[in-house]
Amino acid sequence: MNKVAIKTIERADGEVIKALGKCGVATVHEAQGRSGAMEPEIRAGVPGAAIAGSAITVLCAPGDNWMLHVAIELMEPGDVLVVGTTSRSLDGFFGDILAEFVTQRGGVGAVLDTGARDIRDLREQGFPVWSRAISPQGTVKETVGAVNVPIMCGGRLVIPGDVVVADDDGVVLVPRQHAADVLDASHQRIDKEEAMRTAIKQGGKTLDLLGLREKLIEKGLRYDDGPIDWPFHRE
Amino acid sequence: MNKVAIKTIERADGEVIKALGKCGVATVHEAQGRSGAMEPEIRAGVPGAAIAGSAITVLCAPGDNWMLHVAIELMEPGDVLVVGTTSRSLDGFFGDILAEFVTQRGGVGAVLDTGARDIRDLREQGFPVWSRAISPQGTVKETVGAVNVPIMCGGRLVIPGDVVVADDDGVVLVPRQHAADVLDASHQRIDKEEAMRTAIKQGGKTLDLLGLREKLIEKGLRYDDGPIDWPFHRE
Amino acid sequence: MNKVAIKTIERADGEVIKALGKCGVATVHEAQGRSGAMEPEIRAGVPGAAIAGSAITVLCAPGDNWMLHVAIELMEPGDVLVVGTTSRSLDGFFGDILAEFVTQRGGVGAVLDTGARDIRDLREQGFPVWSRAISPQGTVKETVGAVNVPIMCGGRLVIPGDVVVADDDGVVLVPRQHAADVLDASHQRIDKEEAMRTAIKQGGKTLDLLGLREKLIEKGLRYDDGPIDWPFHRE
Amino acid sequence: MNKVAIKTIERADGEVIKALGKCGVATVHEAQGRSGAMEPEIRAGVPGAAIAGSAITVLCAPGDNWMLHVAIELMEPGDVLVVGTTSRSLDGFFGDILAEFVTQRGGVGAVLDTGARDIRDLREQGFPVWSRAISPQGTVKETVGAVNVPIMCGGRLVIPGDVVVADDDGVVLVPRQHAADVLDASHQRIDKEEAMRTAIKQGGKTLDLLGLREKLIEKGLRYDDGPIDWPFHRE
Amino acid sequence: MNKVAIKTIERADGEVIKALGKCGVATVHEAQGRSGAMEPEIRAGVPGAAIAGSAITVLCAPGDNWMLHVAIELMEPGDVLVVGTTSRSLDGFFGDILAEFVTQRGGVGAVLDTGARDIRDLREQGFPVWSRAISPQGTVKETVGAVNVPIMCGGRLVIPGDVVVADDDGVVLVPRQHAADVLDASHQRIDKEEAMRTAIKQGGKTLDLLGLREKLIEKGLRYDDGPIDWPFHRE
Amino acid sequence: MNKVAIKTIERADGEVIKALGKCGVATVHEAQGRSGAMEPEIRAGVPGAAIAGSAITVLCAPGDNWMLHVAIELMEPGDVLVVGTTSRSLDGFFGDILAEFVTQRGGVGAVLDTGARDIRDLREQGFPVWSRAISPQGTVKETVGAVNVPIMCGGRLVIPGDVVVADDDGVVLVPRQHAADVLDASHQRIDKEEAMRTAIKQGGKTLDLLGLREKLIEKGLRYDDGPIDWPFHRE
Repeated sequence: MNKVAIKTIERADGEVIKALGKCGVATVHEAQGRSGAMEPEIRAGVPGAAIAGSAITVLCAPGDNWMLHVAIELMEPGDVLVVGTTSRSLDGFFGDILAEFVTQRGGVGAVLDTGARDIRDLREQGFPVWSRAISPQGTVKETVGAVNVPIMCGGRLVIPGDVVVADDDGVVLVPRQHAADVLDASHQRIDKEEAMRTAIKQGGKTLDLLGLREKLIEKGLRYDDGPIDWPFHRE
Repeated sequence: MNKVAIKTIERADGEVIKALGKCGVATVHEAQGRSGAMEPEIRAGVPGAAIAGSAITVLCAPGDNWMLHVAIELMEPGDVLVVGTTSRSLDGFFGDILAEFVTQRGGVGAVLDTGARDIRDLREQGFPVWSRAISPQGTVKETVGAVNVPIMCGGRLVIPGDVVVADDDGVVLVPRQHAADVLDASHQRIDKEEAMRTAIKQGGKTLDLLGLREKLIEKGLRYDDGPIDWPFHRE
Repeated sequence: MNKVAIKTIERADGEVIKALGKCGVATVHEAQGRSGAMEPEIRAGVPGAAIAGSAITVLCAPGDNWMLHVAIELMEPGDVLVVGTTSRSLDGFFGDILAEFVTQRGGVGAVLDTGARDIRDLREQGFPVWSRAISPQGTVKETVGAVNVPIMCGGRLVIPGDVVVADDDGVVLVPRQHAADVLDASHQRIDKEEAMRTAIKQGGKTLDLLGLREKLIEKGLRYDDGPIDWPFHRE
Repeated sequence: MNKVAIKTIERADGEVIKALGKCGVATVHEAQGRSGAMEPEIRAGVPGAAIAGSAITVLCAPGDNWMLHVAIELMEPGDVLVVGTTSRSLDGFFGDILAEFVTQRGGVGAVLDTGARDIRDLREQGFPVWSRAISPQGTVKETVGAVNVPIMCGGRLVIPGDVVVADDDGVVLVPRQHAADVLDASHQRIDKEEAMRTAIKQGGKTLDLLGLREKLIEKGLRYDDGPIDWPFHRE
Repeated sequence: MNKVAIKTIERADGEVIKALGKCGVATVHEAQGRSGAMEPEIRAGVPGAAIAGSAITVLCAPGDNWMLHVAIELMEPGDVLVVGTTSRSLDGFFGDILAEFVTQRGGVGAVLDTGARDIRDLREQGFPVWSRAISPQGTVKETVGAVNVPIMCGGRLVIPGDVVVADDDGVVLVPRQHAADVLDASHQRIDKEEAMRTAIKQGGKTLDLLGLREKLIEKGLRYDDGPIDWPFHRE
Repeated sequence: MNKVAIKTIERADGEVIKALGKCGVATVHEAQGRSGAMEPEIRAGVPGAAIAGSAITVLCAPGDNWMLHVAIELMEPGDVLVVGTTSRSLDGFFGDILAEFVTQRGGVGAVLDTGARDIRDLREQGFPVWSRAISPQGTVKETVGAVNVPIMCGGRLVIPGDVVVADDDGVVLVPRQHAADVLDASHQRIDKEEAMRTAIKQGGKTLDLLGLREKLIEKGLRYDDGPIDWPFHRE
C-alpha cells in the first residue's frame, strides 16, 4: 500500500453537484446508463437524508480508522468522506466526533464500506451516513493507509473527486468529467418520468407509453384468458 | 419458461381478505398452522404499512422487470403485485412510476423477491412495498416471462389469487380456498391472546395459562435455587 | 444440554446499571477496552430505544421458545431477557404477549440471537428488542433447555447477571464485577470526548488533539500536493 | 403442519429416471426450459457422485430429524430422500447410520435443505449427499412432521415422486409427468452440444454456430480495433 | 484488550486426547450432550484430515497475525493453534511458513476464525487446517493481542487447554476436565451405533431400534396409504 | 453501458506471466504490497489448478452470458477469460462447451464473478475455473454488454491485459506495467521465505527471524508464567 495523502483534488462544478443531489440516486444512475451504483448492502443510516458532494477517499487497514483523521482535515466545503479498506471490515470506523469534525470542515456526509456508530447521535445531528453495517466495535490507529487515491467502496472503484450522490436508495458515483452531461440526462429523465406519471394518472398504460407492446408479442408472449384452477396443495 | 400472461384469476372474498389484513401477519401465520410465512429477508420498505390482497404473480428474468408492466395492467382493485425471478436478483425492479401505475389500477402494494427503489417516494406516497433489498440498480426489458403463474417468492410458492398478508413482521400467504377458515382461526387466536394478555396483566403466568408447567418437569427440567458464582474471565 | 433453571442470579448495583445505560453502547464498549460488543447482525427492532439491565439468560433448541416462559417468571425489575439457541434459528421467538409478560415482571427489554415478531406492537408499546431478524415464523414448545446458565448470543458468551447495555448501535456486555469500573472509565471517556468536541468546534484537528501527527510520519505517511489527474475510464 | 406420512407415491418410469441421471444436471435443467434447478447453496458433499431417483419427501421442524426415520422405511429401490424444514436449519440431520438405512432400502442418495454429517464416512461408503452445510450439530426427535407431502428444498417446491437429478453442479427436479419428454429433450440437447463441440474443435465459432452474430450488431454491439491505453492506477 | 501471553497451560491426558481424535467430531459432540460444535462455516481446508489436541489460543486484531508468532513458540507437542479476532476478519492469517513452525514445535493443526492461505502447500504437507475462509490476503504485525486467554472461535468460547477435535465434519471442543468422561461416553455411543448399524443391515428399522414408534403415534402422526395425485403445475 | 468489443489489448511479457504463475497467488499478492487479491468468495472450482495469463474482460447483464461468446473469439494463447456483471448474478455462465472454445483459442482458464457449471467435465478436462458459485442455472443471450473494458470481478477492478494469477488460494491481479517488477519482488520473497523455512527447521523462531521480538515488548506485551485455572463452565 502506497502510504500517501494527496492534499488536493479536482472537483466537478459545485452547482452541478448540488443539482445532481436534487435528482436523486435512482434517476442519476439511470441517466448515466445504469452504471455507478454501489451494492445494496451500503445502506442509509439516517433515513430521509439525501446529499451530493465530491469524494475525499480514504484507504484503511481493516479495524483501523487512523486515516480518516488525515482525510477529514483535507476536506473542503461540499465534500463527502468515502472510506474503503484493504480487506472487509464491519467495525465502527465513524461516529459522532468525526461527524463533528467533518461538519466543521464543511463536509456533507460519509459513505463507508465498513460500519458506522453513534448512529442515534448522527440521526439527531442530521449528519448523513451510508455504511455496510452499524456497529459499536471500536478501531485502532496503528497502520498507515492513504488519502485521495482510488479505492474500492460498495463494490465500486471510487476516484477522488467523483461526485457522490446518496439517498434512501443507496449511493451512486458520477465521474466528475461526466457530471454536467449526467445532470442534463437526469433532467431529461425527470421530465420524461413526469410526463409518464401524468399519462398514467390519465389512464395510460406503461407498455403503450414505452412502445413495448408489440415487441412483447414478437418475443413470444401469449395471453390466455384464464382463470386457471391452480392446485393449492402445499406444505 | 412458459411465455404466458393469464388475464384473469380467482380471488378470495374481498371482506375476508380485508379482515385477514386486520389480523396481522403473525396471527394469520399461527392460525393456519404456522405455515405460509416468507423468509425474514423479505422486509418492509415502508415501516408501519399493513395490507392484504390477492396475489397477481409475475415471473421475470434476473435484472429484467418487463413483465411487471404486463402484470399491472391486469391488476384489479385490492390486488397485490408479487414478483419472483428465475434466479436471484437484487436489482431495483419496482419504483415510484410503477407504484403510481399500481395505484391507478387499485392495487394495494407490492412484494418482491428482488430489490425496490425510489424508496423515499414510496414512503411519502404511503405505497407499501416488501422486498429483499433496496437498490437503485436499474433493469432491462429484454426477456419475456410470465404473469399469473405459480412463482417462488420469499422462499415460498405463490399461486395467483393467494391472499397476501403483509406488515412489519413480513409476509404470509393464505391459499384463497382456505381464507375464510384461516380468518375464523385468526379471530379465535386473537380472542385467546386477548384473554392471555388480560390474565398476564392480572399476574397470571404463561406456563399456567398454557398448561405447560407439568410437562416441563416430566421432560426433565430441574430448578436450582442458585445463585451460581459463574466465572467472568473472558476475552 | 443441562436441563436446569437457576432461580436466582447475582446482579450489579442498580444505580451503576442505570448510569451505564445513559453512557450508551459505543462509549461503554470503548471504556472497557473495546470488548464485549455483540456482532452487528444483532439489530435494534425499536429505533431510538436505549436500555441497560441484568441478563436473565435462556438457552433454547432452534425453533422452540418454551424456555422463555420459564425465564420470564424468574425476572426481576430491571432485568433484560437474553436468548441463545443451541444452533442458529431466525424464527420469531418473542412477540407482544411475552413483552407484556416481561413488562409485568418489571423487565426492561429483550436481546435475541433469533428473530422477534409483532414488531409493530412492540414499537407501539415502546418495548425495546434487539434481534438477529424480524420474522413471523412461530415456534414450538417441545424441547427443554436451560435458564440462567452461560449462553452464546450475538457471537458473545453471556453470563447470567452480566450488564447488558443496548441502543441503536447494538449491544455490549459488561461483567457485573467490572460494572463500577467500566462506569468510571465511561464517564472519563465522555468527558474526554466532550472536550474533544469542543476543541473541534473551535477549529482543533483530531490528529493534534490525539497527539498522533508525528507518529504518522514516523510510520511513513508522505504528503503530496496533488491534484493527480486520475483516469476516469470505468465500466 | 399436517402430521401425516403418505405410504405410497407415484413414480416416473425407472429406465427414464436412470437415463436422466446419465444426462447430468445442467443438461436436464436446460432441456426442461431452464427450470427446476435448486439454489447453488445446495452443494455436493461427495465430489464426483451423480444420481437420479424418485423423491421421497420429508418435512421436519428445525433441528429435528425424527421424520427421516419414518420416511426411510417408506423408501423403495431407486428413491432419493429429500428433506425440508419449516424454517431454516443447518444442523446435521443426516449421517452414516441413516445412509446405511437408506442403502438397505435400496435408496440412492439424499438431498437436504439442512446440514449433513459423518461426511468422511459418506465419502468412503460412496453414499451421495447434497446439502446446504456440513455440520456435526446433532438433532432431536421431539416434533412430528410429514412424509411424502410437497416441501420446499433448495428454494424449490418438491412434489413426492419428482425425479431428482443431482451431480457436482447441484440438483434439478423434473416433474414425473414430464420425465420422458425432458429425457427426449435432453438427448436432443446432448446431440446438439456434441455437434457444437466437434464444430468448435474444427475451428467453428459459437456465434456462428448459434446464429447470433447478426443479432449482436442489430442490438448495437460495435467493434473497436483497440488497443486502448487503459490507465492502471489503482489502490 | 489485555496484552498478555500466558506461557503455560493445563492439558488433558495425552492418551485421552488421542482417543477422542479417533472417535471423530460428530460422535464426540453427541457424547457430550450435543454441545461444543463450532459453526459450520469453519470448514476443513485439507479434506480427510482428522486430529485432536490441546488448544493454544490466540487473540488478534482483524487483519493482524502478529500474535500467532508469539503463540507458536509456546506450543508443545500435541497442541492445536486456535485463533480468534476482536472483530470478524477473513484474511489469510496462516500459511505454509507458520505451518512449518507449528510442525517444528510438534503441533498437530490449526483452527482459525479467519482465513488460511498457501492451501495447496498445506494439502501437500498434510498439515491440517480448519478456517472460515481461504484467502491470499496478507496481514500486518502492528497490534499486540493475547495468547492463551479465552477467545471466541467458530461461535464458541475456547479456553486454553480445551481439547479440540476436528475432521471433515468440522470442529468440536471438549473442556479438558471432561475429556475422560466424554471419551467414555463416546465409546459407548460408538458401540451403540455399531450395534445399530448391524441391526439395520439385518433388516432392522430405526424407529424400532430407538423405541420411537409408539411415541410418533401418541404425538399425532397419522399414516395414509396414498398415493395422492399431487398437482405438478409449477413455474 | 457502452456496447463495445475492443479487439486487441496490450499484454505483459509472456515469460514474465508464466513465471508469476509459478510464484503462486499468496506470494505475488505479498510481493506487490499486499494488493490486488480478489475476495475469498471467488473459489477454485478445479482443485490443484494454478495458472497465470492476460485478462480478456467481459461485462454482462445478470443471467446473460452472450458476451462470453464475443470475448472468446478475441482470445489469444495464454489469455484468461475474466467475467463481471452489471449486478450480482450466480447463474452458470460458463460450462464445458465454452471451456472447449477457450481451449481452442489457446486460453488457459476462466475467472467468473458469477457461477460456473459442468464442473465435473471441467475437472476431467483439467480446465481451470474460479467462480463465485457452482450452479446449473442457465443463462439467456438477450442483452449486449462489452468486451475488453475495465470491469469489476471479485471485488476488484480488472483492466484488460492485467496479469491474472490464480490457484487454490484464489485470484490476484497484477497491472501489466508492473508485472516484471512484481516478478522480481516475488522471487525475492520466495528466497526470503525459503531461508526462513530453513531457519525454522533448524530451530529458529519467527519473532527473531523477523526482528519483531523487541517491538512486541515496546508495544506492551507482557508474559505471564501461568498456568491460569480458567473456569470451564459453559453451555
